[in-house]
Amino acid sequence: MKYKIKEINIDAGEFTVILNVKDAKEMGVRSLDRVKLITPKKTITAVVETSTSVVEEGEVGVLCKVLEELKGVESGAVDIVRTDKPHSVELIKHKIDGKSLTSEEIREIITDIANHNLTDIELTAYVMATQLRGMTLDETTYLTKAMVETGDTIKLDKSPIFDFHSIGGAPGNKITFLVVPIVAAAGLLIPKTSSRAISSACGTADIFETIARVSLTKEEIKNITEKIGGVIAWGGNVNFAPADDIIIRVEYPLSLDPYSQLIASVMAKKKAVGANFFLLDIPIGPGTKVTETELANKYANDFIEIGRRLDMHVECAITYGGQPIGKHIGPSLEAKEAMMCLEGKAPSTSVVEKSVAMAGILLEMGGIHNGKTVAREILDSGKALAKFREILEAQDGNPDLKSEDIIPGEFKAEILAPSDGYVIFLDNKKLVRVARAAGSPRDKGAGLVFKKKRGEKVDRGEPMFEIYADNKHKLEEAVNLSNLIKPYQVEGMIIAHIPGSGRTSTYSK
Amino acid sequence: MKYKIKEINIDAGEFTVILNVKDAKEMGVRSLDRVKLITPKKTITAVVETSTSVVEEGEVGVLCKVLEELKGVESGAVDIVRTDKPHSVELIKHKIDGKSLTSEEIREIITDIANHNLTDIELTAYVMATQLRGMTLDETTYLTKAMVETGDTIKLDKSPIFDFHSIGGAPGNKITFLVVPIVAAAGLLIPKTSSRAISSACGTADIFETIARVSLTKEEIKNITEKIGGVIAWGGNVNFAPADDIIIRVEYPLSLDPYSQLIASVMAKKKAVGANFFLLDIPIGPGTKVTETELANKYANDFIEIGRRLDMHVECAITYGGQPIGKHIGPSLEAKEAMMCLEGKAPSTSVVEKSVAMAGILLEMGGIHNGKTVAREILDSGKALAKFREILEAQDGNPDLKSEDIIPGEFKAEILAPSDGYVIFLDNKKLVRVARAAGSPRDKGAGLVFKKKRGEKVDRGEPMFEIYADNKHKLEEAVNLSNLIKPYQVEGMIIAHIPGSGRTSTYSK
Repeated sequence: MKYKIKEINIDAGEFTVILNVKDAKEMGVRSLDRVKLITPKKTITAVVETSTSVVEEGEVGVLCKVLEELKGVESGAVDIVRTDKPHSVELIKHKIDGKSLTSEEIREIITDIANHNLTDIELTAYVMATQLRGMTLDETTYLTKAMVETGDTIKLDKSPIFDFHSIGGAPGNKITFLVVPIVAAAGLLIPKTSSRAISSACGTADIFETIARVSLTKEEIKNITEKIGGVIAWGGNVNFAPADDIIIRVEYPLSLDPYSQLIASVMAKKKAVGANFFLLDIPIGPGTKVTETELANKYANDFIEIGRRLDMHVECAITYGGQPIGKHIGPSLEAKEAMMCLEGKAPSTSVVEKSVAMAGILLEMGGIHNGKTVAREILDSGKALAKFREILEAQDGNPDLKSEDIIPGEFKAEILAPSDGYVIFLDNKKLVRVARAAGSPRDKGAGLVFKKKRGEKVDRGEPMFEIYADNKHKLEEAVNLSNLIKPYQVEGMIIAHIPGSGRTSTYSK
Repeated sequence: MKYKIKEINIDAGEFTVILNVKDAKEMGVRSLDRVKLITPKKTITAVVETSTSVVEEGEVGVLCKVLEELKGVESGAVDIVRTDKPHSVELIKHKIDGKSLTSEEIREIITDIANHNLTDIELTAYVMATQLRGMTLDETTYLTKAMVETGDTIKLDKSPIFDFHSIGGAPGNKITFLVVPIVAAAGLLIPKTSSRAISSACGTADIFETIARVSLTKEEIKNITEKIGGVIAWGGNVNFAPADDIIIRVEYPLSLDPYSQLIASVMAKKKAVGANFFLLDIPIGPGTKVTETELANKYANDFIEIGRRLDMHVECAITYGGQPIGKHIGPSLEAKEAMMCLEGKAPSTSVVEKSVAMAGILLEMGGIHNGKTVAREILDSGKALAKFREILEAQDGNPDLKSEDIIPGEFKAEILAPSDGYVIFLDNKKLVRVARAAGSPRDKGAGLVFKKKRGEKVDRGEPMFEIYADNKHKLEEAVNLSNLIKPYQVEGMIIAHIPGSGRTSTYSK
């Protein structure tokens, strides 16, 4: 039977159609069952929701993803028949039952995910099964390959290709802006793609976007890297490992990040740009994604082994991420600090030292002896700054940009030390909440500037950090949140006061 | 800011609102985040989807569940603010991490589920966590209580209350229609609620609906039971343990049924009718839900223990369910077979024997000695039939109904034995697929009638079973499916033929 197409512009994330309840009953389908929409040119599988009034009998409501598929194919009417759920749902059940999956089975699941063929329920079952059952190294290798194969890839005309990545959780980790130009200035190729913030204060793409264009095409990434050695692009603009973004859609609300999925997600994106040499930064410490050394070592070994199986030479650096890297958090503020470091005006040593050390390892992987010394010379000599300006220019930024040109948000507040003493803890997660309350990453000028970091001595009433915002209201919200959750500890400060009545009240002064 | 309400009649299963992408960005919410809709009278929490065109800027699209909540409260405009996800999502994370949950924590999760406060992703995470982490007996007890407390209950003016339940998987298990009238005729109270088919060929409610009204109110269930001792109602019409139906929504597409959830689901519904004595039927054998004796014993022990904690005396009967019970499958056909058994014209012994045995145990739980003998006397004497007619009359059926008045589907086909030999296997799951292909449970006349059951001798070409359908096309589909999947085995029959080329072809004759 033909159903009249009714366009419904809702992005439900899945391939969804809406049927009138009477039609659905007649067809023997219920909510979340699947149907095939048949047109002379193509057949589309979609998940059913039912309604008594959005669509009349004889109509089919077609949501965004299906609408795109039908574009130019059919706009009048389609045949609809009931169909079974994809076989990969059975394979997910195998994983739930604790079985290992074969290469073909994993490819089938990932293909269905990449093609939006699984419902949120099925996708969550997949993520939960990998979280709770785990995956063998074989399975993780298959997963990585399947994620590469179901997406786009870049093939540079030159080689070898170098790349690096930092596992999340350390705010202010802006080393990309030093490492890429140092490595490129040393004559190596580094087509770096980065992400935007999901739950962090801001991602590398959010930062660079304040001073350059990050939405590059595959061709631009290839051409810029071949021409000047390095690029800093937003990974979301290219279709590398598209299954990953879909999986993240369900991981994010549950704050889940299964072990094997993290490895496959990183490795697939590196494989997609054709990396031959890959350095992984694993920040550890309170509030990072990988808090313990033991887990960091396990990750390191597994990344190296999976790399071996994918013909990629992988090395890992375990770094300290238990407090923010450098002094600035927030899109414009981090761009500013990065420029300051490149100009030789670094406000603290941690960004420079970490960047030089990481770039040094990459140079040695590329056969350059005394990598760290060479990296430092490239930075100190201004060659890194010159290369960064080339990258800026290639990505439509201002090649003459200076750090003082980058202006943070116009509204500013100071958070003062509550007592005399040494700073014993800066809480990454709480600081991220404060930065986000101030508007980061959406408001480019929002963020934090640290006046005192861990181990430094402060006097009562001295500024601990500044909050910047583009919006007065958000600044107030961030200040209130900071006063409430206290994202730092000063030795001697009373953290909580338990009065005699037994109630607990948090000190507010 | 006020948003203009736009009604969108889609039942998405969750509390969902649609915001224009620009408004969502401004508000800092993304798809699947939550917002509060604030009216002077009440505040409603809902999950956000975004759209570029279904709603304009300044509008909020309100789907079914939210629409119901707003009815009579507000139809013009509402304030909307971003809000965090419910605390129960954190508690689900505890379960994912392998922690045991307290009574209060489980109540919080179940309350949020019953109030439609969790998204499909969060709900699936809960089901997967209970499936893979399991629950202690304490947790299962808390779960049962929470499911009772978040729904309606019935309090009869008389006591004690008797009840029974069969775990699924044995097709044709129509014993309710004998057990309820026998027990009621013996003077005991048995307010039986039953379900409709989810994945089975048909449920008790689907069967009884062909000859009586099953959508009874709480008051009707109470009054009929108090007046005549027994009732056979559809549980879906009353709000017992409403969290269960919502959980089933995600279990069904994954064919999952976590151990502890099964126990809590059954026990909560029995507690909701105030059962003091409860008999559980656990059919075992190939194709049933509980295939192994060992698992059946574990279920039995845990049901009994949870019963003890809930002040309910529980006994269990492990029965054989490795082939269909009786000779008929399908709504009208099972109603007909049940009437035949009550009239003393049973087409086979299995329904009568099982019903008398089960009723006998219930009578003994009620202090009646020689329960099975008494049960058989009640059946043989026609007292059970008389009581069944009383129930029929109380539920708006025809009290003078005779089995020959019940007519199955008008289209019929015979499936013939492929060779001489003994029937060695009737495959429950495949038979259910054939019955459903024929139209069961939606088409009341659709179903199967067995001519030969396990252990019986057949000659080649003799009818194995008949397929009935209300619709010629569906009959053909069912016959084709039966020929393809062969839901039986006859000793001596070739099941598959592997030709020399290595291809496998299934024999079709």
